[in-house]
Amino acid sequence: MSFNSFGRVLRFTTWGESHGPALGAVVDGCPPRLSLSEGDIQPFLDKRRPGQSRHTTQRQEPDRVRILSGTFEGKTTGTPISLMIENVDQRSKDYGEIAQAYRPGHADYAYDAKYGIRDYRGGGRSSARETAARVAAGGVARLIIPEVQIHAWVAEIGGDAIDPANFDLEEIDRNPFFCPDPAAAQRWEGLMDAARKAGSSLGAVIECAASGVPAGWGAPIYAKLDSDLAAAMMGINAVKGVEIGAGFHAARLRGEENADPMRPASDGSNRPDFLSNNAGGIAGGISTGQPVVVRVAFKPTSSILTPVPTINAAGEAADIVTKGRHDPCVGIRGAPVVEAMMALVLADHKLLHRAQNG
Amino acid sequence: MSFNSFGRVLRFTTWGESHGPALGAVVDGCPPRLSLSEGDIQPFLDKRRPGQSRHTTQRQEPDRVRILSGTFEGKTTGTPISLMIENVDQRSKDYGEIAQAYRPGHADYAYDAKYGIRDYRGGGRSSARETAARVAAGGVARLIIPEVQIHAWVAEIGGDAIDPANFDLEEIDRNPFFCPDPAAAQRWEGLMDAARKAGSSLGAVIECAASGVPAGWGAPIYAKLDSDLAAAMMGINAVKGVEIGAGFHAARLRGEENADPMRPASDGSNRPDFLSNNAGGIAGGISTGQPVVVRVAFKPTSSILTPVPTINAAGEAADIVTKGRHDPCVGIRGAPVVEAMMALVLADHKLLHRAQNG
Amino acid sequence: MSFNSFGRVLRFTTWGESHGPALGAVVDGCPPRLSLSEGDIQPFLDKRRPGQSRHTTQRQEPDRVRILSGTFEGKTTGTPISLMIENVDQRSKDYGEIAQAYRPGHADYAYDAKYGIRDYRGGGRSSARETAARVAAGGVARLIIPEVQIHAWVAEIGGDAIDPANFDLEEIDRNPFFCPDPAAAQRWEGLMDAARKAGSSLGAVIECAASGVPAGWGAPIYAKLDSDLAAAMMGINAVKGVEIGAGFHAARLRGEENADPMRPASDGSNRPDFLSNNAGGIAGGISTGQPVVVRVAFKPTSSILTPVPTINAAGEAADIVTKGRHDPCVGIRGAPVVEAMMALVLADHKLLHRAQNG
Amino acid sequence: MSFNSFGRVLRFTTWGESHGPALGAVVDGCPPRLSLSEGDIQPFLDKRRPGQSRHTTQRQEPDRVRILSGTFEGKTTGTPISLMIENVDQRSKDYGEIAQAYRPGHADYAYDAKYGIRDYRGGGRSSARETAARVAAGGVARLIIPEVQIHAWVAEIGGDAIDPANFDLEEIDRNPFFCPDPAAAQRWEGLMDAARKAGSSLGAVIECAASGVPAGWGAPIYAKLDSDLAAAMMGINAVKGVEIGAGFHAARLRGEENADPMRPASDGSNRPDFLSNNAGGIAGGISTGQPVVVRVAFKPTSSILTPVPTINAAGEAADIVTKGRHDPCVGIRGAPVVEAMMALVLADHKLLHRAQNG
Repeated sequence: MSFNSFGRVLRFTTWGESHGPALGAVVDGCPPRLSLSEGDIQPFLDKRRPGQSRHTTQRQEPDRVRILSGTFEGKTTGTPISLMIENVDQRSKDYGEIAQAYRPGHADYAYDAKYGIRDYRGGGRSSARETAARVAAGGVARLIIPEVQIHAWVAEIGGDAIDPANFDLEEIDRNPFFCPDPAAAQRWEGLMDAARKAGSSLGAVIECAASGVPAGWGAPIYAKLDSDLAAAMMGINAVKGVEIGAGFHAARLRGEENADPMRPASDGSNRPDFLSNNAGGIAGGISTGQPVVVRVAFKPTSSILTPVPTINAAGEAADIVTKGRHDPCVGIRGAPVVEAMMALVLADHKLLHRAQNG
Repeated sequence: MSFNSFGRVLRFTTWGESHGPALGAVVDGCPPRLSLSEGDIQPFLDKRRPGQSRHTTQRQEPDRVRILSGTFEGKTTGTPISLMIENVDQRSKDYGEIAQAYRPGHADYAYDAKYGIRDYRGGGRSSARETAARVAAGGVARLIIPEVQIHAWVAEIGGDAIDPANFDLEEIDRNPFFCPDPAAAQRWEGLMDAARKAGSSLGAVIECAASGVPAGWGAPIYAKLDSDLAAAMMGINAVKGVEIGAGFHAARLRGEENADPMRPASDGSNRPDFLSNNAGGIAGGISTGQPVVVRVAFKPTSSILTPVPTINAAGEAADIVTKGRHDPCVGIRGAPVVEAMMALVLADHKLLHRAQNG
Repeated sequence: MSFNSFGRVLRFTTWGESHGPALGAVVDGCPPRLSLSEGDIQPFLDKRRPGQSRHTTQRQEPDRVRILSGTFEGKTTGTPISLMIENVDQRSKDYGEIAQAYRPGHADYAYDAKYGIRDYRGGGRSSARETAARVAAGGVARLIIPEVQIHAWVAEIGGDAIDPANFDLEEIDRNPFFCPDPAAAQRWEGLMDAARKAGSSLGAVIECAASGVPAGWGAPIYAKLDSDLAAAMMGINAVKGVEIGAGFHAARLRGEENADPMRPASDGSNRPDFLSNNAGGIAGGISTGQPVVVRVAFKPTSSILTPVPTINAAGEAADIVTKGRHDPCVGIRGAPVVEAMMALVLADHKLLHRAQNG
Repeated sequence: MSFNSFGRVLRFTTWGESHGPALGAVVDGCPPRLSLSEGDIQPFLDKRRPGQSRHTTQRQEPDRVRILSGTFEGKTTGTPISLMIENVDQRSKDYGEIAQAYRPGHADYAYDAKYGIRDYRGGGRSSARETAARVAAGGVARLIIPEVQIHAWVAEIGGDAIDPANFDLEEIDRNPFFCPDPAAAQRWEGLMDAARKAGSSLGAVIECAASGVPAGWGAPIYAKLDSDLAAAMMGINAVKGVEIGAGFHAARLRGEENADPMRPASDGSNRPDFLSNNAGGIAGGISTGQPVVVRVAFKPTSSILTPVPTINAAGEAADIVTKGRHDPCVGIRGAPVVEAMMALVLADHKLLHRAQNG
């Protein structure tokens, strides 16, 4: 059984394979009367788009989104919004090798074990190309939460982390790594070039912060905001870890270090000022009004030129080398995907919260 | 809006507050004709039960589970299984302080911000006492997956980790910490005593492994096995981080280090032997046949004797000290809860997989 | 697989069998800060309670509801509301006959075919006793929609219909049939007595109208208000037909007869006056502001003293007579159940509508 | 809030408006390894296609379906199947009148009341054109239940019913009315011509029977097979009533008349022979092995040439005449839609049943 929908009242469904004619998303539950055109979505797809530097796959996909339903005279109508992106650069190549043998680190073996059939062309449905549909859906979600500002950045590549002292949000768009630390960005150029030349690949850690989220979003006990974010992030291709706020570091703090003390609001409101944010803006599964902060670990790209032992569908030993066009560090292009999922979860919870307290 | 159900075809709903008359779970979707009595569930509740050593809260709750529906002559009938646990030791005490001020690190402020009303007695619904209902439901789930063995243990307390060289599964039940390393268990006695005496608290990391899971469970793209596990674990009280397999460490490996190479099965089956398990038994959101491995970070208990700055409901500054009976390290009793959630997710996916391939 | 939950954002789950220790409902998604006590629910259970006249089953059940969670100091907290009703009068009798053979018209054979196991005591989970849990849940739902007035009545018993000219809402509570036509109520006394004496049973038609529903509730395309009502009503034990507004009669009208013409509101509002209500208050799956009107057909009670040919579990021919305590016309006590389901569907859609437009 | 998905484990989502560029369905949860091509779906769309006789709308839509995802080398892969149908004949016309005033009997006013915006072109999302997507999805569902034969027919137009004595399944495809009674078909020609000439419209009753359904499908208490069918049918445009088996007629039978007696199977199996089928093949919400029988009432088309009093968006009185291309009896083309929904519900329940008993 597959489940290709995500969300509770803002609910999107994606479809499409890496090498099919197109892929898309149906976004259901969007409120009516919001201004929406392709121009609201395209910039986010452009950020995720491959082939923009030598550090990402050279597959050339314009990733033009079309809105096929759900708007009238430039506004949403409350009906489902169908978004479609055509696949253009499905390079006609010989898939013989990956058709025959399972690529370690990829879903090849698992898909075969589950479904008894496998679209091996570019990984089929398991390809990270599917995340383009999430990014498009995320563009719609952002319109629902104009009060929220979402930023994701690469905090670490191959174990080399940014220096918080150098953090500058504006740097993110000035280098090919969504890196907020210009010194780290420069180091990463070298790291990435070396990995690529070695036929190897690197992992990455993405951080994402959403500010402007009011206190009160999140639906305990089983649709907690952090729980939904964890599902959203862990479901992104190549992700192996998720942290909220201080994350695993919190497990090493003492109670008095980890508590986020509160003080009366300096602006005179009845909302507290928090003196720290180890909680990552979420307590008891509900937003506290502080920035919602998530960290996401991406494993290194599994498609590498180094031969790896594997088996083929007949169960025989084989070695495999994954040629073709691949991101040497899939985590980088993960940043816009993390942002999109953050937007989708928050928009869903905004609407959910309205249901009960509206 | 609250969501108090979890699961897709095996679906449980919990109810109850820390200081209400009772709490419970309704487990829906359990297959018929399984032998089930209270004796199948009680041992798991006993593992989680408080007051068994000086290292956990001294609240005395027998946590006796009653089955109120769903069985006939000792067997499940396919109808909903209602499980109830009465609250016994709701100590009659003065809640004045926590009724007036928000405890930092707790959900007090967030619940008030969301609901505009708060059952402050012991944290109400946000209390970790709710996890007793999950553990009871988990007891039912285990009957659905007899082929799977699930073990959770504490791998780290206050930053002090077990030594993998000392790992012995049988040790887990021989100390009050679910610790598989006897040397670490001894060190932790001292750590815990010191923290308790200092009026402080400690965090912990739990590891959980499920062996015997066949390849093929998991429902991409949005009900991936790892995604559902991440939601399940992050939704446990005090959890701030979740890793699958190598987790964040994978982000620091190179592609060739992280790949889990495969070789023909030594047992002659058509299932591969994997030469490592960085993937934690899941690829593309689907189980691979290797053990499913999860790591979960618990923050230190927020209820501490050290005064912490906060505000009261009127928005005025206050300092708060949380007296009463608390676990100095909530992560310890988190181990049976992690096991239960692992069982619930796996049982759900076993049934889901049957729907499509049965 | 069983599904024992109903609703989308106001979602309730029921559990319990006819002859188990208790039955109940967990109501999830109720908004916070509503006044709620057992006294808000009990009157609806009392209306449905058996043994109040010679025309219903003589089983004596006090049907006392207990609220086990979800309220604090008399108000809802936004957390799940657990309602429990103990079974008292499970008469210790010999179930030999129905344990051995399938009662035609009942779910005995179907449950055995589905589950391979059957709690034959009073029909187990398939007993209409489960509807007590729905009625209790409906009591909570009504608090969410104070603007709506819901009334159900018996419009027809054994083919003998009320005369619309005699319709008087106040009569409903003055006779044992929820009959708004005193003349019909008198005739039905005789009909019912005759059927009971003959060891036979009668069917009934229930009508239910909800006034005060504003225009705009309902969630096309697949959670239309009428679609959800149809599911809710058809799911009640013994129901075989559901109509909205003019129902099947509409299929015999011409377009110009069936249209509900509109005129500017006589009260000066921008809401139209409708000149008829063939639509039953719903167009395109959305409420129009007119009363929402449903008609529901109940088959005659299947438990009768007349012998009916059947088979036993071994597949051999048998004749069966269903002795014991039964309603000669289950439709009568269906009226409070229809009201409850109407309340539950409307409350759910009120909250849903808020999510999008709040 | 809108909900545009239907089903539990076989789940489809539709999108698209009457006058948008296209409409479609995403079918999720289809088992892998089934042969599927456009040729499996197109015949059902062709049955529903308008413009095939003078008795349906003259809008010319080829309704060519394209499969955009979910298959590989002619077989399903277990991933979502995206189906798209382009709109071709969106006649460029003046919508001035219906843009200004609400058409009685249509969803115009209700959509405006709900969403505050309305795509008035051909009814937008509320148009019965959306049912083409359901019919396409139904084509996929049929592949999942090859053991089931589904037939729907028109049993009544404008109150003129077929004669059961004349019933011949093969006649259904020999006349433009899906009519199994040739004599009735002939009468209906005249009825329809007269109604069309009078600028009026007629209602219809559709019957649908599914044979080959094994005993045991259906998921009590809230996903009963009859309950899901009632939702599915009531959700079709223009439907106002649904009956299972004897339906409302059952409410007029006595218990001994309505019971479906059972006898040992004449074929020696352990499945009973039923001596009647008043239950319509469903007891307790579970299939019994008899044919599943549904009756569905369609109101007369609301688009008529007869002027009807209404109001405009400003709340002023107006009269409206709906010109353009319309079906004089929408119920006729409802037959393939009823069949599709029957297939979708049954396929969903087959997979659900597997989850628990597979």
